[in-house]
Amino acid sequence: MANRQIVLDQLPQGKLTPDHFRLTEGERPTPGDGEVLLRTRYISLDAANRAWMQGATYRAALAAGDVMAGGSVAEVVESNVSHLSSGDMVFADTGWQEYAVLPGKRLGKLPDFKPVTHLISVYGVAGLTAYFGLLECGAPKAGETVVVSAAAGSVGSLVGQIAKIKGCKVVGVAGGAEKCAWLTDELGFDAAVDYKAGDVRRAIRAACPDGIDVYFDNVGGDIFEACLFNMKNFGRIACCGAVSQYDGTAPPHGPRGVPGLIVTKRLSLRGFIVSDFDDKRDAALTELKSWVESGQLKVLEDVIEGLENAPAALVGLLAGENRGKRMVKVS
Amino acid sequence: MANRQIVLDQLPQGKLTPDHFRLTEGERPTPGDGEVLLRTRYISLDAANRAWMQGATYRAALAAGDVMAGGSVAEVVESNVSHLSSGDMVFADTGWQEYAVLPGKRLGKLPDFKPVTHLISVYGVAGLTAYFGLLECGAPKAGETVVVSAAAGSVGSLVGQIAKIKGCKVVGVAGGAEKCAWLTDELGFDAAVDYKAGDVRRAIRAACPDGIDVYFDNVGGDIFEACLFNMKNFGRIACCGAVSQYDGTAPPHGPRGVPGLIVTKRLSLRGFIVSDFDDKRDAALTELKSWVESGQLKVLEDVIEGLENAPAALVGLLAGENRGKRMVKVS
Repeated sequence: MANRQIVLDQLPQGKLTPDHFRLTEGERPTPGDGEVLLRTRYISLDAANRAWMQGATYRAALAAGDVMAGGSVAEVVESNVSHLSSGDMVFADTGWQEYAVLPGKRLGKLPDFKPVTHLISVYGVAGLTAYFGLLECGAPKAGETVVVSAAAGSVGSLVGQIAKIKGCKVVGVAGGAEKCAWLTDELGFDAAVDYKAGDVRRAIRAACPDGIDVYFDNVGGDIFEACLFNMKNFGRIACCGAVSQYDGTAPPHGPRGVPGLIVTKRLSLRGFIVSDFDDKRDAALTELKSWVESGQLKVLEDVIEGLENAPAALVGLLAGENRGKRMVKVS
Repeated sequence: MANRQIVLDQLPQGKLTPDHFRLTEGERPTPGDGEVLLRTRYISLDAANRAWMQGATYRAALAAGDVMAGGSVAEVVESNVSHLSSGDMVFADTGWQEYAVLPGKRLGKLPDFKPVTHLISVYGVAGLTAYFGLLECGAPKAGETVVVSAAAGSVGSLVGQIAKIKGCKVVGVAGGAEKCAWLTDELGFDAAVDYKAGDVRRAIRAACPDGIDVYFDNVGGDIFEACLFNMKNFGRIACCGAVSQYDGTAPPHGPRGVPGLIVTKRLSLRGFIVSDFDDKRDAALTELKSWVESGQLKVLEDVIEGLENAPAALVGLLAGENRGKRMVKVS
């Protein structure tokens, strides 16, 4: 039986394009002892997908010819482990393909939250990344000023809303007047800065005249630098990603003010990935669910239909065309 | 009565030289209500002195024509406050002059530790900076690998020794083979890296084949970058200063890998200055004293005689010519 797959045909040297991928057809695999056969439902698209093509990160680097890596919400079709049954939903590193066989040991049954797409957005990596990065690394207090970059993205749109729930003043940085208006009008951000509209450091200063207490960084680069120069003493920076630096060639020089401003302002910076907080996951999901159900947290999803459209959808994500969590519906 | 003073005659645009200062003679000031007259004994020389010429840091920027700012151990000559008496020793921002009048309110009597120079080295800002930066920001555990830059300096030489007391493997980064030999032979460092001898990133990797758990940064710049690339997952960087960046003109670009490596390695960076830990000062002094008295902690002091030699002594400090804590004996 067939298994449609997207292969990373060649590693990008500069900007990623859909031409770096190709669609192919493999055999549907058969699970052995301790393994499960999974049917991919929704693939999560993330800026980190691009980082995996640059070298080893928290996972091994991708190589040309590999099935493109990626996490997805998948349904168990056949299980050779006792803790999973046919029909269970799991989050798994299936890659970009219709079917995958994985060891069952490290897979856990997902809670029965509906709609299933929420398992990949607010109850998935995006939601938990926003939750832990903001609350554990940023540790904002009510009344403080929180800035988040890539604010219209899957993580940023949740970070800003969670910060509002916690009583903070929230400023989002996003590209374009339309996204900025959406942040303030629809999501309740106090202000938004359009980084495409000119001097971002000055614009952030104008939006945060007393300085920034917590900066949630999704992008690195110039926006990171602009926020660094506007931090208050004892401010905190949650380092979540550096999307501005994933999709290019040579590693750029880092932001000015490192480490000088870190010292004089006594800043704390902390990098994290979501699995660092696995022990607090259940409590986080409970709190996120209560906010969603009460309507305090709006969940934005951007669902692209069809496995074959995943390459263009990722390229578009890197260019910032999505609002909220982008994912690909496979089945 | 006379009061010899060193004035910052002009702000340096590039490298600081003794010509930026001039010796002058003022009037000895008279203390008013709530004030004390202090006689400067030993002036502390610090890389931060140079940073104050670059703009506002944790203190206001220096201006041309100011008496050069600086902390010193000083003796109370005349007191108009009840908690200080003639003969008491205090640490005060006297500036580079023989006599100063300061409000008594913020001055505290120093403990009667001998020799008095230790009040400016191991029991002063240098010792407390090493202690708090390493233990509070770096939080090393026994068996971990600690790297410290400017390792032969006042702070670095103590950081490395304290890390050894805590059971860590210690690598110092310093300039020149002689300083490096001194670190390993006299101070008990496990290894030393001469940053003047070539590729510092490679040399650090060779000295720390398993990576760095804690990096105590005194310098910023290339050495910061080299350590960043050699950090282990969940490593910690204590940001204490950026001496490589104080004595120049335009602010350079920051280190590559910020914030990318902070994310993928889940690093924590924390900037601090010693007064952030004032509430833990007494406990720190007690522990430092016990290590000095038991011989576990060697205290290196580099005493320059005469107020008139302070400018050249600071320039020399910025060039790295000192070993241990440099100070100027005024009286």
